[in-house]
Parts: sequence; structure tokens; C-alpha cells
Amino acid sequence: MQVGLIGLGKMGHNLALNMMDHGHQVVAYDLHKAAVDAVAKDGATPASSVSDLVSKLTPPRIVWLMVPHGKPVDNLIDQLKPLLQSGDIIIEGGNSHYKDSIRHAEDLKKLGIHFFDVGTSGGMEGARHGACYMIGGDPEVFKTIEPLFRDTAVPNGYVYTGRAGSGHFAKMVHNGIEYGMMAAIGEGFEVLEKGPFDYNFAEIARCWSNGSVIRGWLMELAEKSFREDPRLDKIKGVVHASGEGQWTVQEALEVEAAVPVIATSVMMRYRSMQDDSFSGKVQAALRNEFGGHAVEHA
Amino acid sequence: MQVGLIGLGKMGHNLALNMMDHGHQVVAYDLHKAAVDAVAKDGATPASSVSDLVSKLTPPRIVWLMVPHGKPVDNLIDQLKPLLQSGDIIIEGGNSHYKDSIRHAEDLKKLGIHFFDVGTSGGMEGARHGACYMIGGDPEVFKTIEPLFRDTAVPNGYVYTGRAGSGHFAKMVHNGIEYGMMAAIGEGFEVLEKGPFDYNFAEIARCWSNGSVIRGWLMELAEKSFREDPRLDKIKGVVHASGEGQWTVQEALEVEAAVPVIATSVMMRYRSMQDDSFSGKVQAALRNEFGGHAVEHA
Amino acid sequence: MQVGLIGLGKMGHNLALNMMDHGHQVVAYDLHKAAVDAVAKDGATPASSVSDLVSKLTPPRIVWLMVPHGKPVDNLIDQLKPLLQSGDIIIEGGNSHYKDSIRHAEDLKKLGIHFFDVGTSGGMEGARHGACYMIGGDPEVFKTIEPLFRDTAVPNGYVYTGRAGSGHFAKMVHNGIEYGMMAAIGEGFEVLEKGPFDYNFAEIARCWSNGSVIRGWLMELAEKSFREDPRLDKIKGVVHASGEGQWTVQEALEVEAAVPVIATSVMMRYRSMQDDSFSGKVQAALRNEFGGHAVEHA
Amino acid sequence: MQVGLIGLGKMGHNLALNMMDHGHQVVAYDLHKAAVDAVAKDGATPASSVSDLVSKLTPPRIVWLMVPHGKPVDNLIDQLKPLLQSGDIIIEGGNSHYKDSIRHAEDLKKLGIHFFDVGTSGGMEGARHGACYMIGGDPEVFKTIEPLFRDTAVPNGYVYTGRAGSGHFAKMVHNGIEYGMMAAIGEGFEVLEKGPFDYNFAEIARCWSNGSVIRGWLMELAEKSFREDPRLDKIKGVVHASGEGQWTVQEALEVEAAVPVIATSVMMRYRSMQDDSFSGKVQAALRNEFGGHAVEHA
Repeated sequence: MQVGLIGLGKMGHNLALNMMDHGHQVVAYDLHKAAVDAVAKDGATPASSVSDLVSKLTPPRIVWLMVPHGKPVDNLIDQLKPLLQSGDIIIEGGNSHYKDSIRHAEDLKKLGIHFFDVGTSGGMEGARHGACYMIGGDPEVFKTIEPLFRDTAVPNGYVYTGRAGSGHFAKMVHNGIEYGMMAAIGEGFEVLEKGPFDYNFAEIARCWSNGSVIRGWLMELAEKSFREDPRLDKIKGVVHASGEGQWTVQEALEVEAAVPVIATSVMMRYRSMQDDSFSGKVQAALRNEFGGHAVEHA
Repeated sequence: MQVGLIGLGKMGHNLALNMMDHGHQVVAYDLHKAAVDAVAKDGATPASSVSDLVSKLTPPRIVWLMVPHGKPVDNLIDQLKPLLQSGDIIIEGGNSHYKDSIRHAEDLKKLGIHFFDVGTSGGMEGARHGACYMIGGDPEVFKTIEPLFRDTAVPNGYVYTGRAGSGHFAKMVHNGIEYGMMAAIGEGFEVLEKGPFDYNFAEIARCWSNGSVIRGWLMELAEKSFREDPRLDKIKGVVHASGEGQWTVQEALEVEAAVPVIATSVMMRYRSMQDDSFSGKVQAALRNEFGGHAVEHA
Repeated sequence: MQVGLIGLGKMGHNLALNMMDHGHQVVAYDLHKAAVDAVAKDGATPASSVSDLVSKLTPPRIVWLMVPHGKPVDNLIDQLKPLLQSGDIIIEGGNSHYKDSIRHAEDLKKLGIHFFDVGTSGGMEGARHGACYMIGGDPEVFKTIEPLFRDTAVPNGYVYTGRAGSGHFAKMVHNGIEYGMMAAIGEGFEVLEKGPFDYNFAEIARCWSNGSVIRGWLMELAEKSFREDPRLDKIKGVVHASGEGQWTVQEALEVEAAVPVIATSVMMRYRSMQDDSFSGKVQAALRNEFGGHAVEHA
Repeated sequence: MQVGLIGLGKMGHNLALNMMDHGHQVVAYDLHKAAVDAVAKDGATPASSVSDLVSKLTPPRIVWLMVPHGKPVDNLIDQLKPLLQSGDIIIEGGNSHYKDSIRHAEDLKKLGIHFFDVGTSGGMEGARHGACYMIGGDPEVFKTIEPLFRDTAVPNGYVYTGRAGSGHFAKMVHNGIEYGMMAAIGEGFEVLEKGPFDYNFAEIARCWSNGSVIRGWLMELAEKSFREDPRLDKIKGVVHASGEGQWTVQEALEVEAAVPVIATSVMMRYRSMQDDSFSGKVQAALRNEFGGHAVEHA
């Protein structure tokens, strides 16, 4: 199939290669010309602008966005609206909030443009050699673009999730689970590290990656990390949060779902971003007041 | 090799079959004669008592215990002590506390008996077709019994962890991580279930099992669970805790490791075992006192 | 001073009495005529409608809203806008979200109407005999209405917090702290209740209310609760959440503040509202799959 | 009454003064002679050793220990055993683990010596001018020493809790609640500090100390702390944990009580003691592996 791909960052570039591996034709555009040139060298048709990209596609057009959520997605959809026509399709493959996707779908529907919100997992490696997709949008139109997902996903690695918004909602929750799992893994290794034995963490992670109940990709990546830096001496334990974990907790607050583990994992990321915490200062001050416990000075 | 296996429950029986598949000779004993008969039918040499089992083994003997931790392990080791001789080996494959294993190792060392504490993961399926082992004990003696682990584990699925106790410590932490990961998965599906979309959970779990960041055995099992009971209507959400999760938190408290996610996952299991909570009663009573908020009556 | 009070529920009625105790004149209105009659009997001037209430006030008018947040507040402000004039004052004493209050303040400012968002704590008892106020709005105009707060608060029990929104923000955080403190108290009594000793909870709470580090109003209320129902046998541990605790966590998510304790206390309230949890069902199903652990049937 | 007081630290010295204020006679001993001299100057009878102290008491003797838990308490009781006689009384006023107190009580009972475990709250201020006591031990003997507690506690500030161990158990839980309440307060101020408004924290804490639902001694101390250091710029947010919070969680683990808020508050103290966390390092490494997210270097 022919796809107009906008956004050629870490994920987008790999996805373009993946699509071309499977015989799809990619027209590619990015704000950075160097990114367009790079993917053109690999076989994609370069576009010099959004309108140039659209003009190089045969209707019904498929435009796949692989850009950061929020403003970038909003701006591109605004640009695409006058350029596309009824029957065209926008695939939004970023980590957008599902409410934004519902809004985009309703907005584009008035113009007859089909919108699909596609949560994409598997990291850069997945984008290149087999991703995992959660796809929301019109079920009939989905069938016409299903080959794109089938070809670029790992076997069994995509799911049609229902109406618009459901793809990004599923991806949001996926990341919430990911936050919790990562925190559990991190905490476990911290207990190993502080405990009475002297473990080879890479060997432990290797073992746990094979046959254990907690085997999975994250544990395999843990092994890889420990092979490169056995005690992680070079890495600071600052864990940034990109949005979906926070949104999962916000959604849980709205629907009154009890997610204390995911919420705590998000909170610990925030804590990791601080050198010192105001919360801790208050408690240290209180201990000093009532018990005369010495405070450490900042 | 020749192994005396004591404990033929869900795990032990499968392990016996697994060992015999790989050409090892199993002398088997269990308090329940029916369990001995069953494994004898599959090719093991039946033993009628612990001493009978020992008498049927050629020194240096290997006795593998696959029984519940605590009293059962203690009693068996007490029985074995006068029956075994210097150079014999005890493999303790249960979910024992690592401090018990250190005690057993020191105790047996005085008699020249080698003790290995072996954390075993992978469930019944793993015991049957490829387990995951974390093994603590003497490094030189380990080499003599390594074939047993290599043959019955999945490829790359065992690790020598260091001195006695380190195997069960690693298994304890493994289960702590497991508690946290399971809670994260459960909470994620709860958000999906309470959210605005109508998901097919089995399909979501199938997709997440292929190519996603959170892929792994637990997600594959989630798919299986949802295939059997799509909304888990038949299952009550009571999640028992078998010990290691609790021990992980206790150990974290001793070494002052911050494990809020694992601790919370343990606490939520306790909460799940209660129909109502005293903690909740107190809070409901307080709200009634200060705000006149109606309480629900028990 | 003369105050038009709208909303004569548990809090509003008590506040009216409190104001009249201190010589203020109250013109009172509520959707329920019976509530107006009741407070009129106690000395307030009854109003039959919002416009009737406004007509009975002498400019510059002071209208104090004591109604639920959201729609009720929005509707009343919409009704008041054409009835009030430049220089009039609206005091919004409900548990509104601070962003709504900022919106109202900006909206009313265009008409020259002064808006104060007033977080009110202390429960019904406080409204009647001495409340606690956090007050946001114009600092100069505040001075003109300060006597109202000074008279109806406990000594030292009000604070001017800054520009509009800051009063309700402070009240939101106050309630977030309240959720955490209540959960800590509830959990503590649960440990007492499950532990090896047979305590008289009312006596414990009485002792802790006098001289201990954790003394305070909540502990005094705990004593009162236990005096009425020594083991809280009559109360179900369902703890509803009225908004501000949830908002505190949402705000923390926005500003990346680490509030794991408050977040967990909110999550436990949600858990308390469920008879069974989907999260627990998933975990019970997983344990059954990998370990053959029996599930309890729903 | 006549009391032999051993341990003249921050708490013990104040308690001696408190007892003497109420007409009790204090024989005082401490390992540090300067501490003995100081309290002797205030009117206590100095003792030069444990045996000297015992010899200066008239049977039935009352010996009150105010020393750190663990070894110091064990050692003193070992020293006292041969010096005391049947009918004498030991009051153990430290923060000991309740299981130690049960052990001491049983041990001393064989010698006819009565043991009381007394949890003491209220900080240094309380020890000086009115403490809060939770007292476990023999109910009949308790009556004979009750005046000591009545006189040195705030009014209504002591409670007889039951058999030996129950006093320290109650104090343990008290501190667990304290940890949770302090964390909630700390987190609340962190949200205020990170939020959009510029609060005067001392004024907020002053307001919340008067009439609010969350009023109490801790909030009063928070006001005091903020008066001294308005943004706590001089204090590092390192919050040490002295034992009872940890024990509360351990006890909850043993009795399967769900205390996620208290557990999380303990975990956050551990986190505060670390400059960086191994848990965070692992998670940062994982994010780098799957998403190419940059790590910060240690």
C-alpha cells in the first residue's frame, strides 16, 4: 500500500523501513530535512512539505502521523484538513491522550476523513522489526488498512480495539502497567543490592528471563543493561514520566478505579526527579520540633 | 544421575517426570502413598519411607526436597541427618525463607552434608517441561550436580547465586517482583474495565503478549484466563499471599530499601482477603462525625 | 454586616446561626422552602428567590454561596450576574475546584463584582461555633469583609491566602492531607484490632487525644465514634470521596509532586466502595494459571 | 512516691523534673556522670551505679528505665535482676518492641518482679510538662503506681492497656499512625509549594491549627517550623526512622492487616535517606533500552 508518513524520528524512521521491507510505498516528510533525506536514501519518496506529501499520494490517501502528542498532532491535523478529501484516512500513531483522539475523530468525520488512533508499543526495535498496535476507529475502514498493521507488527501483535479513542486508551493503560512493572523490577533489584548476598545482577536477570514467572521483555532488557554496566554505576536513577502513566492515574481517579500500585510507581518517578523533597523537609522539621531529632542541613 | 525426591505434590511429581525424561533415575517418596504409586507408574523407584529412600540411593547421595517451607522442611532434614553421611547432598527446592536455609546449611555442614537452597520458578508447567532455578551452596560441589539443573531447566534458566541462602533470597525477591507485576497488570485491566470502552480483554492480552513492552509470561497467562472466562465473572478477587512477597517487604524493612510498589501490592492482597476493613470502618465513622456524612450499615 | 446567604444545608444553616450570633444580619434563600422557614424562625430574613434575596440587600451587597460545587455554583453565579452591580461581592464558600474559582473571579471582574473563594473547614460543628477559613480574592476588598470571617471563625482560624483560587486550592490540599491522616488512623486501629491484644479502642483514642504526638480533632472524633459503637460493628467500611482528595492527586500529577501517601489513601477509598475488585480477579486468575492455586468462586 | 530513674537523656531528664514537680522523690542514674549531676542539681538524689541506685530505694522499689530499646534495656534488666527482690517493680518507658517486653515480663515474673511496659508519647515537651502513656502490665499492681502516671501525664493522658506488651504495642501503632500523618502533612505542603500560588506556609499552618479538621499538635509544630524557616531552606529532607513505624508494618505483615498508607510513609523515609536509588537506576536503564530515552549520568 501507499502511505504518507509524517514524523521521522526514532520511531518514524524505523517504521518507514519496516513498511518498505514489506513492500509498502512510503512518502515521507519531517520538519527536519536531514531526516527526510535519510529515509529517502533508504527508498522512501521524499516530500518537502505536508502539502507536497499529500499531493504525492493517490486517493484514498493514507497519512500516518508519528509525532509527539499535543500541539504537533493538532497542528498537523489542522494542516491536513484542507488538503485531504472525503474517504482519506489519518492514522495517528503517537502517544496521544484518548480524549484528543476522540475529538480529532469527530472533527474529521464531518469532512468524511477517517481517523484511526493507534497506540504503538515495542520501542524502536519494535518499530523496525515488528511493533505492537492497539487500533481504534471505524471497523469497516479498518479492514482496508489492516495489511499495514499485519505486515509491520509481530505475529499476533495488533488488535482492533473499537471506536476512536480506544486505541490510545489501551496504550495509555499499557504504559500504566509498564510503569508498575518497571517499578517492581527496580525495587526487587534494590533489595538484592542492599541484601546480604553479592549477586551478579546480569546473571540473575538472565536466569529470570528464562522459565521464570516474571520472564518477559523488560527482564531481558534488564539483563542487557546489567551486561553493559554491572552495578549501573554510570546511570543516575532519575526516571522521567512521559505522560501515559500520569494519565492512567488521572483516568483511574475519574472512574474511581483503585490503582495504588500504578499511582505509587508514578509518584516514585516524580520523587526520583527531585534532589530533595519538600515533603521530606517538612517531616524532618516536625521530628526536630517534637523529638529534638537533629536535622541535616541543606 | 540418581536422585532421591521427597515431596510429590504438584511441583514434585512434574519435576520427577522432567528428570526421568532426561535420563535421571528417581527414587521417590511422599507421605501420601498414592502420590508415590503414581510416580512409580511413570518409572520412578518407589520408596516407603525416608529411610527406605536413603537406603535405595548410592553414595554420595542426592536428596531433593520439594515440600512446603517451615515445619515440613525442618522435620525432613531432622530425619535425614542420621541417615545421610559425609559427602551426601541435600537440595532444598521449596519456597523457604533464606534464613532457614542458612541455618540448615550451617547445621548440615557439621556433618559434612552439602546443602543447596534452590528457588524454583515457572510453576507446574515449568517443573514439567523446563523450570527456572536460583541455586545457593558450595560452588565446587555445585558443579557435580549442575547437570540435574541444566537438564530440567529451560535453556539458560538456572543460575548459581553464591553461598547458601542466596538461592532462596533471590527466589524471595523474584516473588516480590511478581506480586508487583501482577498488581500492575490487575490494576491496568481494572482501568480498562471501568473506562469508557468495551474491550475484549483476551484480545488485548493477546496483543500485549506479542511485541509490546509489557509482554511476558504473565500477560500470556492473562490471555488464557480471559479466554476461559471473558470478564472473570466466575472468579472472586481474593488474592492469597504465600509468604515470599511478605518476606521481601520484611527484608526491605531490615535493610531500609524503599519498596513502596511491592509493599502496596502485598497490602492489596491482604485487603482482598477481607470482606470489609476495620480501617474503612474507622474512616467512615470519622466522616460521619465531622461532616455528618451518612454511613452504610454493616 | 448584612449578608445574603444562599444554600441552607447542614453547613449553611449553621453558618447563618453563627453569623447572627455575632450580630450580622442574614437574608437567606434555599431551593427548599422548609430550609428558609427554619432559618427565618431563628432570626434570618427569608427570601423567596435569588432576585428577592438580592433586592433585600443594600449595596455594596455581600452574597455568600454555601452550595455544592460544580453546576449549582455555576448556575447561581449566572443568575446573580444580571442582578448584582459593580462593587458587589460574592463569597463562594463551597468545596469548588480552584480552577472554577479562577474562572468565576475573572468572569465577574468584568462586571466589577468581587469574587472570594473561601475554603471552609471544621465540619458542621465549626460552621456553627467557629469555622476555619482559607480565603482568596482581592486583598483590599478582603479587609472590608474580614469582620465576617473573624467573627464566625475560631480565634486565629482564618487566613487570607492570596489571589482568587488560592482559597479553594488551600482547602483542596487541606482535604488531601485529611484523607491521608484519616487513612493512617484507620490503618493503625486495624493493626490494634488484628493484633494480639484486646484493646478498648475508645480508651486508646482518649489517651492519644491527650498529650500524644498524634493528638488532634480527628483522634477526638475517633474516641467519640468508639464510645458510640465500641468495635464499629454497625458501620460498613465504605469510605466515599467527595472530590478534593482526588483533585489533590490530580494537581500533584500536573505539578509532578510526589504524594504517594495521599494518592494511596484516595485509592483505598475507591477500593472500599467495591465489594470485589477486578484487579483482584485478574491476579487470582493468574495465580491459578501458573501455580494451580485454587480460586474462590464469585 | 520514690522512683529510681535510669537514663537521663532528653526524655529522662525532663521526666525527672516532671516527677519532682509533683512531689515524687527521684533517685537518678545515668552512664554519663554529667547527666546525673545536672538532675541532682535540680533536686534528684544522685546514684553512682545501678546497684547504688537500688540500694537507695525503699522496697517495694520502683525502677523506671528511660533508655534506648534493645541492648541497653536488656543489659539493665540483667543487672537489675540480682539486685531487686520479689514485689519490686520495673517500669520500662522506652520505645521497645512489644515482644521484648513480653519476654522481660515473663522472665521477671519468675523472680516475683513486676514489669510494666510504658509507651511514652508527647516528645520532650510532654516528658517535662505532661506526657501521654500507654501502660501494659498487671492490673492490680498498676493501681499502686498509677499516681506516678496521673501526676506526670496531661489530664486524661494515660491509659492502662492490658497485659504486658500491650503498652509498647499501642505505642508502636501510635508511631505508625504518626508516620502516616506526618507524610500526609509533608505531601500536602509539597503540593502547596509546587502549585500556582505563593503561600505563606506558617500562616496556612496557623490557620489549619485552629478550627480545621486536620488541626492537632503536628500542625502546630508545622507552624512553628515555618516561623523559624519560612521555606525550610536550611533543612534537608532526610527523614530518619527510629523503629516503631517499621515494626508497625512488620506486625501488619504478620497479622495480614492492610496498611498501605503507613507502609508507604515508611518507604518514603527510606527513600529520603538515599541520594539516589538503585530502583531508579534500573528503571532509567530500562527506559533507555526500549525507548532510547537518554539517561542522566551519575
